[in-house]
Amino acid sequence: MATIERVQTDLFRVPLRTMLTDAMHGPMVAFDLITVRVLDSDGLLGTGYTYTVNHGGAAVATMIERDLADALIGVEAGRIEHLWHTMWWRLHYAGRGGHATSAISAVDIALWDLLGRRAGLPLWVLFGGHDPRVPVYAGGIDLELPVDDLRRQADAFLAEGFRAIKMKVGRADLREDVARVAAMREHLGAGFPLMVDANMRWSVDEALRACRALAPFDLGWIEEPTIPDDVRGYARIVREGHHPIAGGENLHTLYEFEHAIRSEALTLPEPDVSNIGGYTTFRKVAALAEANNLRLTSHGVHDLTVHAMAATGTRTYMEAHGFGLQEYMADPMAIIDGHVRAPDTPGHGVLLDFDRLAHACAA
Amino acid sequence: MATIERVQTDLFRVPLRTMLTDAMHGPMVAFDLITVRVLDSDGLLGTGYTYTVNHGGAAVATMIERDLADALIGVEAGRIEHLWHTMWWRLHYAGRGGHATSAISAVDIALWDLLGRRAGLPLWVLFGGHDPRVPVYAGGIDLELPVDDLRRQADAFLAEGFRAIKMKVGRADLREDVARVAAMREHLGAGFPLMVDANMRWSVDEALRACRALAPFDLGWIEEPTIPDDVRGYARIVREGHHPIAGGENLHTLYEFEHAIRSEALTLPEPDVSNIGGYTTFRKVAALAEANNLRLTSHGVHDLTVHAMAATGTRTYMEAHGFGLQEYMADPMAIIDGHVRAPDTPGHGVLLDFDRLAHACAA
Repeated sequence: MATIERVQTDLFRVPLRTMLTDAMHGPMVAFDLITVRVLDSDGLLGTGYTYTVNHGGAAVATMIERDLADALIGVEAGRIEHLWHTMWWRLHYAGRGGHATSAISAVDIALWDLLGRRAGLPLWVLFGGHDPRVPVYAGGIDLELPVDDLRRQADAFLAEGFRAIKMKVGRADLREDVARVAAMREHLGAGFPLMVDANMRWSVDEALRACRALAPFDLGWIEEPTIPDDVRGYARIVREGHHPIAGGENLHTLYEFEHAIRSEALTLPEPDVSNIGGYTTFRKVAALAEANNLRLTSHGVHDLTVHAMAATGTRTYMEAHGFGLQEYMADPMAIIDGHVRAPDTPGHGVLLDFDRLAHACAA
Repeated sequence: MATIERVQTDLFRVPLRTMLTDAMHGPMVAFDLITVRVLDSDGLLGTGYTYTVNHGGAAVATMIERDLADALIGVEAGRIEHLWHTMWWRLHYAGRGGHATSAISAVDIALWDLLGRRAGLPLWVLFGGHDPRVPVYAGGIDLELPVDDLRRQADAFLAEGFRAIKMKVGRADLREDVARVAAMREHLGAGFPLMVDANMRWSVDEALRACRALAPFDLGWIEEPTIPDDVRGYARIVREGHHPIAGGENLHTLYEFEHAIRSEALTLPEPDVSNIGGYTTFRKVAALAEANNLRLTSHGVHDLTVHAMAATGTRTYMEAHGFGLQEYMADPMAIIDGHVRAPDTPGHGVLLDFDRLAHACAA
């Protein structure tokens, strides 16, 4: 079997077309993109990437370059599970999650891409193939957008092909959240799948108050009502809030999902393939969700995630983020009648334009 | 109040006099030391540091330099709780623990040192002052040391002033662990405080088997029998293993300690001030321990930790590591009859020889 010959890591700072806003991360004007290219001894190439919001990207790139790359060189490229654990234990002291898991994710995604290319199979088939057509929602990052712009953004989402939308909540005055959600519900009509995301802004009691206030609007789910560390708080919100509760973009290990799911703290587990440990861990979380009769949703990097979502039947909408990475892709995913289709090209099929990234997004 | 004017971060690679070995981290020949010096607008200086084992140090330094430093500049140096949360949220996406917490720890320790110097008080007094005399044990990192050398190491510890010793276990064959512990118990005599540390090597059932096999040797505690992610596994070992169980060097948030303590998974919580979030979080863990009638122990960087341990009455032995950083200190702590004494100089009182570090430990 081919062995890993070279690992190239690059850091880019990708500007956003419009400033994004949510309840906890402050204004977002750019995101850090960390890419990994793994070349094997047969000359095959796999590409992976992860990202961070506002901070931490340089540290992730440093970890891959200084702490992970030399553990990969010379090892059979197909021993992904083994390499995953080698990386985990390399960064375990002080790591065990956090940015280390993002670094591992980028490498893991590159290794799976490489395997798909070797097999001549798209990853969604390699992963066991459920249905390449995946329902998708538009994730608005729009807490500070005036209501008129919210409506215009929704119209743009509809024109793009979306048939489900998530909006931010968590303003200082709950009545503003209620008015904004009411406006969107009226604009989109009864029955249109509308979700909200509080980005951890509330205390548990504030979340329950918000659940009551938002009850008339038939929301698909409420996402991240409070900090992910408060698993008992989440369980209480699930029990008493009378809404499906989504969360997981800030859980960074399989064990954190296990704890949350066992504690009945999540209705919709929502891993991010680029910070949970790559496809390797994402698929284990999907198995946990299935074993617990829970539908999986997802966070971030939908062009990669689509393969993991297309492989499982126990899933609901996949998130499509407005981070604008598609501008640097050869063939970004088309949204048709609320769905995307996992590509049939080998690997994950995402081709990044590294020349354009180097030119436009130097970190 | 004085504001923060400058933050200087440095990375050193400190060679170890002898190679250290435990059950999970592989051979250790050096450790990464990340130092932070915070200068305020009155010209006062506070110093903090953290470390990593084998990997991850450069990423921690990168985080402090690129993601944290500019959030500190211009802020009142005394608003430590505020600055702690600012740093936490800066690195929260992809962070929430992991190396981010080590980065925060180094800064937090520097800020407390600065406050102690401003107040003209040693930190153990600033923290509420229980007793500056703290019982200490020698933490041998000695899994691969032949039994004769183990005995010689123990004699050296005794000559240094130690009156309690911890040794590594977790060899592939449990009978070797038993023989080594038996040899040490015989060498040290009945009643001498002897502890063991498995560094996460065992499954829960292997840990229980080891507990049974080690029962004749009257151990002070068994440390990290399995991976810290398995909180229920720990609780079972506490219930069925008939040994005090210590752990915590691999827990990186207050919430992880809360979960472990609430789950009755630890007999002896063992935070590391350099990776739990600095003195700020260490002292909150101490409060949790006290509220739950548990004795606190500690991991790593004893020259810093002594202040937090001297401030609380609900503690047992503090660990003193063999990492050799004392060679780069002006006045390393003396061990007298099994105790160290928290210094009475303002701040934490640790003066690192940066010239020597720069000369001998360039990263």
